[in-house]
Amino acid sequence: MFHPTPALTLRRCSLASRAVLAITTWTIQAAAEDKKPEPPKPPNVIIILADDLGYGDLGCFGHPTIATPNLDRMAREGMRLTQFYSAAPVCTPSRAALVTGRLPVRTGMTSDKRGVLFPDSKGGLQAGEITIAEALKTKNYATACIGKWHLGHLPQYLPTRHGFDSYYGIPYSNDMKPAVLLRNERAIEDPVDQTTLTDRYTAEALTFIRQNRKGPFFLYLPHNFPHVPLFASSEFKGKSRRGLYGDVVEELDASVGRILETLRELKIDDHTFVFFTSDNGPWLVKRGEGGSAGLLREGKGSTWEGGMREPAIAWWPGTIPAGRTSAELASMTDLFATIHKLADIELPPDVTLDSLDLSGVLTGKSASPRQSMFYYRGTRLMAARMGAWKAHYLTQSGYGGDAPVPHDPPLLYDLEHDPSEKIDVAKSHPEVIAAMQKLVDEHKATIVPVPSQLE
Amino acid sequence: MFHPTPALTLRRCSLASRAVLAITTWTIQAAAEDKKPEPPKPPNVIIILADDLGYGDLGCFGHPTIATPNLDRMAREGMRLTQFYSAAPVCTPSRAALVTGRLPVRTGMTSDKRGVLFPDSKGGLQAGEITIAEALKTKNYATACIGKWHLGHLPQYLPTRHGFDSYYGIPYSNDMKPAVLLRNERAIEDPVDQTTLTDRYTAEALTFIRQNRKGPFFLYLPHNFPHVPLFASSEFKGKSRRGLYGDVVEELDASVGRILETLRELKIDDHTFVFFTSDNGPWLVKRGEGGSAGLLREGKGSTWEGGMREPAIAWWPGTIPAGRTSAELASMTDLFATIHKLADIELPPDVTLDSLDLSGVLTGKSASPRQSMFYYRGTRLMAARMGAWKAHYLTQSGYGGDAPVPHDPPLLYDLEHDPSEKIDVAKSHPEVIAAMQKLVDEHKATIVPVPSQLE
Repeated sequence: MFHPTPALTLRRCSLASRAVLAITTWTIQAAAEDKKPEPPKPPNVIIILADDLGYGDLGCFGHPTIATPNLDRMAREGMRLTQFYSAAPVCTPSRAALVTGRLPVRTGMTSDKRGVLFPDSKGGLQAGEITIAEALKTKNYATACIGKWHLGHLPQYLPTRHGFDSYYGIPYSNDMKPAVLLRNERAIEDPVDQTTLTDRYTAEALTFIRQNRKGPFFLYLPHNFPHVPLFASSEFKGKSRRGLYGDVVEELDASVGRILETLRELKIDDHTFVFFTSDNGPWLVKRGEGGSAGLLREGKGSTWEGGMREPAIAWWPGTIPAGRTSAELASMTDLFATIHKLADIELPPDVTLDSLDLSGVLTGKSASPRQSMFYYRGTRLMAARMGAWKAHYLTQSGYGGDAPVPHDPPLLYDLEHDPSEKIDVAKSHPEVIAAMQKLVDEHKATIVPVPSQLE
Repeated sequence: MFHPTPALTLRRCSLASRAVLAITTWTIQAAAEDKKPEPPKPPNVIIILADDLGYGDLGCFGHPTIATPNLDRMAREGMRLTQFYSAAPVCTPSRAALVTGRLPVRTGMTSDKRGVLFPDSKGGLQAGEITIAEALKTKNYATACIGKWHLGHLPQYLPTRHGFDSYYGIPYSNDMKPAVLLRNERAIEDPVDQTTLTDRYTAEALTFIRQNRKGPFFLYLPHNFPHVPLFASSEFKGKSRRGLYGDVVEELDASVGRILETLRELKIDDHTFVFFTSDNGPWLVKRGEGGSAGLLREGKGSTWEGGMREPAIAWWPGTIPAGRTSAELASMTDLFATIHKLADIELPPDVTLDSLDLSGVLTGKSASPRQSMFYYRGTRLMAARMGAWKAHYLTQSGYGGDAPVPHDPPLLYDLEHDPSEKIDVAKSHPEVIAAMQKLVDEHKATIVPVPSQLE
């Protein structure tokens, strides 16, 4: 855990004042109206995570028949990120990376034998790991995790042991038996009624926001859907043109709408940073019950783009410019450093992070500091990205049961020209392959083997 | 040609007054400000057609690295249509259908031997066909066609013989030699400099709009791009993350921005209906120089969705509600009847139309009157759509050189659940196949063979 000294905290507060005044307009306006400026507070933070939602499953990312007016509005009022990646193509490692800012291969939260944690697993996120929630606690944030944790269901691994004041949700995937609902560390519904789960998560979230309206607060809201089995409430079942999958996504969309509306109603929208994304790509083998990666190749489980590139929307009225699309390279692991920056917390020393501060990208003031990405499947580095280029050293379908196929030279794609990964240009770009190999070697040298928590 | 009597015109004007007052707010506001209400005019109409642009090639339709801020803004201020179809998967028949509201199989503007008109073709759109421009001339619209006509390059087939006061553009595709630029019926540049073509079309369009600011006017602006060979002006070349294809689309996007900005500046945006779409899907065999159909299957030339479903945006501030997405079924042939309705012109009697009035869809007041769609390749009916269902009787790739494959029973897809046409559900829905067959038989009975103009 990261515990700054009081003196350090104070100094950072003072820096924070200047930083927040420099990048926001609301603070200045509010001060002018009240005539007595309050010291600026660090922003509230809400991360909303969908489960197995595909890159192409939202209206604002091109789906023709799933109606997502609330997420579309969130995008109109904020920023759509079109090259935003999860750190893994399946649940557990992706979520571990989100909360720690570290690749799963560093935290032991991945495995080549079992892709994710199961109800019979004994492992989980280690106590030594620093989560976003723990970091924000040093700035007195109220913190809540509502939804699917999937980083260990034994008590010592639960959100309440990782910086969250409270937890309400299912500790693993909704297809794992028995699906049991926890409040904090106690089972309160077994088996859980999944038809009302999204609605109940939303109600819990709204209660938390209202109770902590004076802020600052951090809400981590990882929904269980649209992971199969799919369930929608009676209000949404049969409503969508896209069938049950669409009903489920439209219920999530409505949940986002209720949250943003509550922020507006409480007049805290201008000091709340909200980020929406998904943990990994669509589960294509589920056919009509799985989503769509849009123009991207493959889906969940694979390191083709469809497995790891996610729809992402950032929203913070007055700070994040409205109606922008950013094609800057960004990773889910970057939320860790970005939130540290927004809350003016120094990054922990003595920890190898894979996290870069994207606050300049979100305010539209600078290009992304991120120039590379590493695509892991389990502990295997399958592919790497450098600028627009992606090299596949190994390819394998998500859930096809095929063995990994090695490529030497690697397959090479220009992802910005060819997002669907159709045109291998390896032969004409040996210099890119050489530079990529150097990047990969440097990256691999930073990896220290750790025991897997998933086996 | 359709020539209403003066008396009939007068009666329709009077009806138009009520209709326009009922559905628009600008008329009432303008009247209140001026204190002397002018009789409402029918709206100006602008149709902007891209050439070979794919369903997935705009930011607001999900492309990650083509920046289309102007079309995205047009969508935010207007309506995105996500189930809008061209009437053919290639240029000539698609454009013939747009201007006449009739399937190409009725006008002879299609063929099983040659898909489109070539510089050595002798045929073209017949004088007896009624175009949107001719209809609007009965209401004293100023009319201009600027861009790619492709409905016959011999003088008797040019836009100037089909209701357009003026023409400026290339009469066929930009890959057909010699690519020559016409003004009205005279060659003015041979060969044409294609690098400045989009810019020059735009300049011509802006001049026409300014000259006819008092309205009503009809501008048909079918661009030559992003059809290959691709050319961008020096301002746009190298600008896009997507390479030359992206540069070309971004230049088209800027052109749309200049047009909408001019309408705002002239304060005629609130009585101008603008519609943007593409003639057919992306030319996939051109690889990096062709576009993307997004999540749709196949592209140009084929009757899979990628060949005929188009990105479409309708814009008319104050009349078309802002920021809406409509998944109502709509066809390019419907522009004919819709524009007749907007300009209060009766549809021509004694002509078999394939055109339905979508004005209720565009104002958000009603569901689409269209419940079916017929997918032709040449004169062959390959597939049909009934509600959400699509049956493929014959399938064939766009440019793969393969022979058509017959299907009995047809392949059946639920396009609203499965827009990517992955899950054939024919076996479980014999009743849909029976109903579809009845629909197809009824449709086929309306087709009267006519000589092809393309052979």
